[in-house]
Amino acid sequence: MLTSIATVSLSGSLTEKLTAASRAGFDGVEIFENDLLASPLAPEEIRARCADLGLTIDLYQPMRDIEAVPEEEFGRNLRRARHKFELMRRLGTDTVLVCSSVSPLAVDDDDLAARQLSQLADLAQDFGIRVAYEALAWGRHVSTYDHAWRIVETADHPALGACLDSFHILSRGSDPKGIEDIPGEKIFYLQLADAPLLAMDVLQWSRHYRCFPGQGGFDIAGLVRHVLRTGYSGPLSLEVFNDVFRQAEAGPTAVDAHRSLLVLQEAVGLAELPAPVVPTGVAFAELVTPDAEPVSAVLAALGFARSARHRSKPVYLWQAGEARVLVNTGPAARRDGTGLAAIGLESPDPAGAARRAEALLAPVLPRRRASEDALLDAVAAPDGTELFFCATDRPQLANWRADFEDVPHAAPDTGVTRIDHLALVQPWHHFDEATLFHRSVLGLAAQESVDVADPYGLLRSRAVTDADGSVRIALSVGAAPADDTVHAQHIALAAGDVVAVARRFRAAGGLLLPMPANYYDDLAARFEFEEGELDMYRELGILYDRDAYGEFRHCYTRTVGRVFFELVQRDGGYRGYGAQNAPVRLAAQHAARRLTGG
Amino acid sequence: MLTSIATVSLSGSLTEKLTAASRAGFDGVEIFENDLLASPLAPEEIRARCADLGLTIDLYQPMRDIEAVPEEEFGRNLRRARHKFELMRRLGTDTVLVCSSVSPLAVDDDDLAARQLSQLADLAQDFGIRVAYEALAWGRHVSTYDHAWRIVETADHPALGACLDSFHILSRGSDPKGIEDIPGEKIFYLQLADAPLLAMDVLQWSRHYRCFPGQGGFDIAGLVRHVLRTGYSGPLSLEVFNDVFRQAEAGPTAVDAHRSLLVLQEAVGLAELPAPVVPTGVAFAELVTPDAEPVSAVLAALGFARSARHRSKPVYLWQAGEARVLVNTGPAARRDGTGLAAIGLESPDPAGAARRAEALLAPVLPRRRASEDALLDAVAAPDGTELFFCATDRPQLANWRADFEDVPHAAPDTGVTRIDHLALVQPWHHFDEATLFHRSVLGLAAQESVDVADPYGLLRSRAVTDADGSVRIALSVGAAPADDTVHAQHIALAAGDVVAVARRFRAAGGLLLPMPANYYDDLAARFEFEEGELDMYRELGILYDRDAYGEFRHCYTRTVGRVFFELVQRDGGYRGYGAQNAPVRLAAQHAARRLTGG
Repeated sequence: MLTSIATVSLSGSLTEKLTAASRAGFDGVEIFENDLLASPLAPEEIRARCADLGLTIDLYQPMRDIEAVPEEEFGRNLRRARHKFELMRRLGTDTVLVCSSVSPLAVDDDDLAARQLSQLADLAQDFGIRVAYEALAWGRHVSTYDHAWRIVETADHPALGACLDSFHILSRGSDPKGIEDIPGEKIFYLQLADAPLLAMDVLQWSRHYRCFPGQGGFDIAGLVRHVLRTGYSGPLSLEVFNDVFRQAEAGPTAVDAHRSLLVLQEAVGLAELPAPVVPTGVAFAELVTPDAEPVSAVLAALGFARSARHRSKPVYLWQAGEARVLVNTGPAARRDGTGLAAIGLESPDPAGAARRAEALLAPVLPRRRASEDALLDAVAAPDGTELFFCATDRPQLANWRADFEDVPHAAPDTGVTRIDHLALVQPWHHFDEATLFHRSVLGLAAQESVDVADPYGLLRSRAVTDADGSVRIALSVGAAPADDTVHAQHIALAAGDVVAVARRFRAAGGLLLPMPANYYDDLAARFEFEEGELDMYRELGILYDRDAYGEFRHCYTRTVGRVFFELVQRDGGYRGYGAQNAPVRLAAQHAARRLTGG
Repeated sequence: MLTSIATVSLSGSLTEKLTAASRAGFDGVEIFENDLLASPLAPEEIRARCADLGLTIDLYQPMRDIEAVPEEEFGRNLRRARHKFELMRRLGTDTVLVCSSVSPLAVDDDDLAARQLSQLADLAQDFGIRVAYEALAWGRHVSTYDHAWRIVETADHPALGACLDSFHILSRGSDPKGIEDIPGEKIFYLQLADAPLLAMDVLQWSRHYRCFPGQGGFDIAGLVRHVLRTGYSGPLSLEVFNDVFRQAEAGPTAVDAHRSLLVLQEAVGLAELPAPVVPTGVAFAELVTPDAEPVSAVLAALGFARSARHRSKPVYLWQAGEARVLVNTGPAARRDGTGLAAIGLESPDPAGAARRAEALLAPVLPRRRASEDALLDAVAAPDGTELFFCATDRPQLANWRADFEDVPHAAPDTGVTRIDHLALVQPWHHFDEATLFHRSVLGLAAQESVDVADPYGLLRSRAVTDADGSVRIALSVGAAPADDTVHAQHIALAAGDVVAVARRFRAAGGLLLPMPANYYDDLAARFEFEEGELDMYRELGILYDRDAYGEFRHCYTRTVGRVFFELVQRDGGYRGYGAQNAPVRLAAQHAARRLTGG
């Protein structure tokens, strides 16, 4: 089906909005009146711009407070409508959205509403225009879609139909099944928006918290299925009012938006995308650094061995158990220090995984870095992290490991067994996008979002995982747009015995993040420990948590550049990430930064 | 009465929080458990730090999920409590907050709750500690203050009393009058928080949107009056969970917080402050600039005459009608261009106005700038703008005008009559503080807050005015913390005939901000104008609005540095500021910036 987006969903000037919508692959746009009013482009120029960009103008919106008013007022409304219809002719669009009145002048009289909407449709017809009537969830007398449809049905005018908006329908708790009672040709337009399930005033909810399908709590796919059963054949159009998207760059927001419609179309059987290929493990994490020494020292102290080097590039492979860390001092290294640049994901079908990612608008990265390298499938995540789809040690498939040749090394320590999870700080404006990306592109499941109190603001954190926890990625975002400098990314390493690995690390000269004594007094109050156990944790800076499934012990290295390591020991099926302890850890990191002036 | 603040209300490390609370003038603090856990200071060190800072520790909080649970669980809870009581002894505090249980283990049995709370109080008493029991608005079985009080009454234990929290009481819509049924000596603690009136889930509302008394919609003074009638003599303590304050610097937040308690104490008759002295007009606006030429050219084109110069400093007075603008090229001028630095407010009692400001924690500025200058009373607003309390041309009172000597000049044009309003962009974290400051310090009334869509994010705007509109200040704040570079401050000049002044300005070479043609087409649809009227507006870039009281016509100069001028014509008692037109104006300013690369 054709896809469209309301210009109000994107930031910037009208030209910026149109360009972003076109680049992201939308077929059309809804022109939001305020965007047109503020634009220096004449309607004819907007029409030409859209045509150049391959965009149709599917809707002009909104026309407000038209119907069920005293005759004199309605006369003024018709005058206003005539001006708008002339404008629409210049724009070259043939459908106008009329939303149910919120005017104090409006009366509760469906017959009057139907009669006046019919008169409006008469006028519209003269201009070749169709009127799509929509119930605002906070409309004065008409606030549900079935009520709006009854009025449209009463009016029985060929140029008058219904506009359905998933937010207005689902936020009121209306049953969308009744949509099937509307003939498809009388549904003139379909607007889609999701929203988090908030118990709040519906007008505020609508104006500030809408999001793209799949990012909130509504069953948008279910609603669309009802609409499709009517025979509706117009576009699927997004209309999202969101405070964050208003600030974000229009380009990435439009990509995020279009991806949401692709996933939605797949869900309702309108589009066939390459099937998701869920990763089965973490092949490697790649750090880039202008100076390999500090991070190499940390890895060595953690028991990693420098086991191989890349055949053509300044990249070393460090390994401990099944945990592999690449340290790259090549040109990608940023001046501002060590950072996590790429993740290798073990994939049952790397090419298939890449095809799905590409179909879902992820930028595909060059398949090889040098001519002699293995052909690797890789894409960029929204935060810029490169995701490599790997087939380690599987004959017939390109193997990243083949690009490395072994170097002499001592056997690694056996303490660290694998990468438990990767923690990625997301750009502030793109947190919802990141979750949808990891769910839809990688086929991972998202856990609940949690708030974490940092001393200088509230963070949000949300993990995405596969079914058995082989791949775990913790996405987080700071309290404010400017706030991604403080919070480094990190690599969490699994250990069967975190105490042993921590001791070894310290004995090898590694610095663990010290935790405050008060924290351990609190642990003593909350839990009972074996004799001496808590002293051991206190000495090493090990944090402790427990959930319904098991126990979690974890500790942290000092930060190197923009990255640090966590050592974690999961016992008995613990599912979390120690969020309960995160405020203490964050405060300790701030304190450590102050000490080192970092 | 003594004042206190919960450490959770302020950002930073515990040390930063304590320092900020002390500097702002609080008598004591509530130690929030998580702040203690994350602190490297031992309880004895925290106690000593507080003593050094002149702070008492009035409360330790919170203790959760204690009561109405099976015996075995309650045994564990008592064990946990014993640990905390030991900690409190080290801290040197004698009151603990126990909030009503949210545990799934808790049962709906008031007698059990009373019995277990009584046992807890027995244990507390051994440590010389009192237990203050509070109903959380989302408590599992106990969610109202009167219910919590019935349980305390049943327990009838000398070491068990009630804690009242204005948020929990007022957010549930409970009638606070019933507080008077509680004996004052059984109210062990009083926590105060205001909140905007949002229809949303009470837990989310409480955790993210609380604010200081007078900044929200609750009648905190009314509640406090009820509490005082009981004979309560403990501290007035603030406990505010707020996403913005979590990010803001602790110092200004603590000042804002303490000011709110001073205003509250005045309202309930607990404190006598110097009476508010409402300003009666704007004496001048002062611009500082490293280069006076560009802004002087704009003023000249607006019809201002450079009528006087300061006797000792590089400051010129420009005047048109009763509008006076000082242009200062002295050392205060910032490199980054012209900005609005000070406002002179006509005051019936300048010294009294300054005394009130000082009592409400406004920094008092040096009373004279040079030895020969008039003694002027001045304070700094939260955004750094200097406010001078002036007595222009009133014998016996210091007159700022006396510091200026006339210079030869042509008669100014008569178009501009006065300063209509000043628009000040506020630092993101201190918008609520600014409103409370202008209301409480200057005695101005705040209008409703409005959202304004900028192309790159949503702004909030709120005006403060005196009763007859002689002094109007429009406060606004950007969409995000980093976002105060785009939005310049502005001086709005009143004109009897905005068209004439705009024409004169243009004829003199001034550049008006051009407005898009689409805007005028929309005006034509919405209103009927005299023949030619709209063309005139279109030609000059004049915007139009209408409210229930009258009409508003306004236009804008180009921005000079960080300031621009607006010309406004109010007719028939129009009360607003053209907020309806603000999105169009903001888009036009962004477009102009792009053109000039500014």
